[in-house]
Amino acid sequence: METRFSYIDHLECSRCGKRYEAESLQNTSLCCERPLLVKYDLAALARAGMPADLAGREATMWRYHELLPVRSKTAIVSLGEGMTPLLAMPQLGPTGIAGQVNLLVKDEGLNPTGSFKARGMAAAVSRAIELGAKGLVAPTAGNAGAALAAYAARAGLPACVVLPQDTPRTYIEQSRKYGAEVKLVPGLISDAGQVAAQVARERGWFNLATLKEPYRAEGKKTMGLELAEQMSWRLPDVIIYPAGGGTGIVGMWKAFRELQELGWLQEKRLPRLVIVQAEGCAPLVRAFLAGKEEAEAWPSGQARTQAMGLRVPSAIGDRLILQAIRESGGTALTVGDAAMVQMAEYAARRGGILASLEAAATLAAYHELLARQEIGARSQTVLFFTGSGWEGR
Amino acid sequence: METRFSYIDHLECSRCGKRYEAESLQNTSLCCERPLLVKYDLAALARAGMPADLAGREATMWRYHELLPVRSKTAIVSLGEGMTPLLAMPQLGPTGIAGQVNLLVKDEGLNPTGSFKARGMAAAVSRAIELGAKGLVAPTAGNAGAALAAYAARAGLPACVVLPQDTPRTYIEQSRKYGAEVKLVPGLISDAGQVAAQVARERGWFNLATLKEPYRAEGKKTMGLELAEQMSWRLPDVIIYPAGGGTGIVGMWKAFRELQELGWLQEKRLPRLVIVQAEGCAPLVRAFLAGKEEAEAWPSGQARTQAMGLRVPSAIGDRLILQAIRESGGTALTVGDAAMVQMAEYAARRGGILASLEAAATLAAYHELLARQEIGARSQTVLFFTGSGWEGR
Repeated sequence: METRFSYIDHLECSRCGKRYEAESLQNTSLCCERPLLVKYDLAALARAGMPADLAGREATMWRYHELLPVRSKTAIVSLGEGMTPLLAMPQLGPTGIAGQVNLLVKDEGLNPTGSFKARGMAAAVSRAIELGAKGLVAPTAGNAGAALAAYAARAGLPACVVLPQDTPRTYIEQSRKYGAEVKLVPGLISDAGQVAAQVARERGWFNLATLKEPYRAEGKKTMGLELAEQMSWRLPDVIIYPAGGGTGIVGMWKAFRELQELGWLQEKRLPRLVIVQAEGCAPLVRAFLAGKEEAEAWPSGQARTQAMGLRVPSAIGDRLILQAIRESGGTALTVGDAAMVQMAEYAARRGGILASLEAAATLAAYHELLARQEIGARSQTVLFFTGSGWEGR
Repeated sequence: METRFSYIDHLECSRCGKRYEAESLQNTSLCCERPLLVKYDLAALARAGMPADLAGREATMWRYHELLPVRSKTAIVSLGEGMTPLLAMPQLGPTGIAGQVNLLVKDEGLNPTGSFKARGMAAAVSRAIELGAKGLVAPTAGNAGAALAAYAARAGLPACVVLPQDTPRTYIEQSRKYGAEVKLVPGLISDAGQVAAQVARERGWFNLATLKEPYRAEGKKTMGLELAEQMSWRLPDVIIYPAGGGTGIVGMWKAFRELQELGWLQEKRLPRLVIVQAEGCAPLVRAFLAGKEEAEAWPSGQARTQAMGLRVPSAIGDRLILQAIRESGGTALTVGDAAMVQMAEYAARRGGILASLEAAATLAAYHELLARQEIGARSQTVLFFTGSGWEGR
């Protein structure tokens, strides 16, 4: 049977479903100015069946190349991203019942550049280069910029990273070390987004802002594919994920839907998706609790949290995120910065993992949902530790 | 056919070959006070053949459990160490011929805690606990202490890390965050070694100093096993490795010998092993160049380098290291701190990897050996980037 390296077929507007071709560089949909989603020829892949050699492929996210957008193997720009460990961590349950909870941690901090952002940038940079990009730019709260800078360096392409000027120094330095041009702007990531868009226009560079191009979400999708493979093609009861721009959740939900359609899962049941945001910046949680389909922007002046990855006042993927949570029967909640700091310490001392504040927020959310009895101790729960806290902020 | 989880058989004095049993906690050999090496029942494993499911096993170093010392799967203390990426990096060749060299980098910075030390500690902590250790202590220049602290935290065992007082703050903080007791002592790692030995005696804790117990080298051995598997059971022409205590080189050479004996390699030829040390502290290079079998200690007051992992004035495994280099037809050289700093920058800007100074030393050595024509541009060369430089020192 004929097999293809990638089964990418076309792009689709996430709002109205209008179809776009996938063989040129595109940002949001021209029709609705909303995220474009990648559609694969899943029917053909389903006919071909799960690749017989899958289990023996290299331990990176590219093992799922059929479900990734890069057409040619030689276009892949890789630093070894993906296939991060999934660790049983019952000891991270709350004192008293620690050791008795069914808890797993996916340690995304072991990706190149220290966070899950590597997955998205590996996919997006590879595909952008395959489609002819000459330079790359993105606004970022920190981690994504470091990832962009690293993959651009690996590929030999110029890159520009636009950050809020109060971003912790370690992130700024990290991007600079990879040789990227760094622009610091007053305000939040939304303000950085304006500057990045301008750089893209002026220089003819490709703008890789979250969900403003279709491929970062595809890279992040591999978190869901990997989770399924690591659990022998079953999925957990609950997934808790820290949502800033929310591409991780969108990507993962897309992964599960694709696996369902392919018939690769052992069970029909999908996990409940839980997102956690910071008390000081929670537009998606507010919208979820108010039963809304879209999220109003959090007032910029009031967006306050030390977890830079969660300081995102508005997410262009709001509809997709809210839809995924609701379809899954999940929920959304906030935690305070103090709880994040406390849980980061808890994870280090009991689990041996230095987690970022964003990652620690998932542990705080888990404890909270156990206390509210919205999750049972026996419910198999996976926390996504999205980034390493190693830089000691 | 009967198969065993581990084929560990006994221990052997690396100096005189005296046999010791492997089922109790032991440090150096009682006969010669030299490193004990682990011996496996390779004949039995060879008869069983390469495990049919090996390629599909989890992407950690524990995929090689037959060749690791832990008898029971449940005793494994893991944070997902091993199966780090092997990346083709021709662009890190010297300007002029960059892109035309046959160069690969094994990025050990993607291990838990940020360095290859995780492998050794995962093996040693797991085995120490299996054999009944109640507390763990080790002297360290930084990375090994962080690894010990993390694995002890994961296992719920108390740990004490002894560091030179001028160790960079990030390392000290890293060990503390995992909840380990940190002792700072004047002088070098050799001085820290005295204090660690004392702590072990007074408290009845197990001392995990490099090559003063048999199992850290076994964990590091997996670098060699992985390299072979990632290269389809062939090995490269040359391996360049930064040597402080030298356990990495000892472990890797042991891996290659075991694979030879098992008949798992496609070719008989083994790689040339090259070690690199710092100009300001190079006891092994001096001994190698002088044709000696043992290395005299570098005068403590003169041991100067910013690469803390290379500031090791004397290595208890000196004979084993020198023997491995000579048997392999390899060599030893020094590079200066300035070259390390420069090469760390080169690797970041051209390769997208933030390498530690120790790691960058291998790139400096590679450029030097190309210039000396001791390595050809076409010789397939693997650099071990032993640790991440992310902490921004």
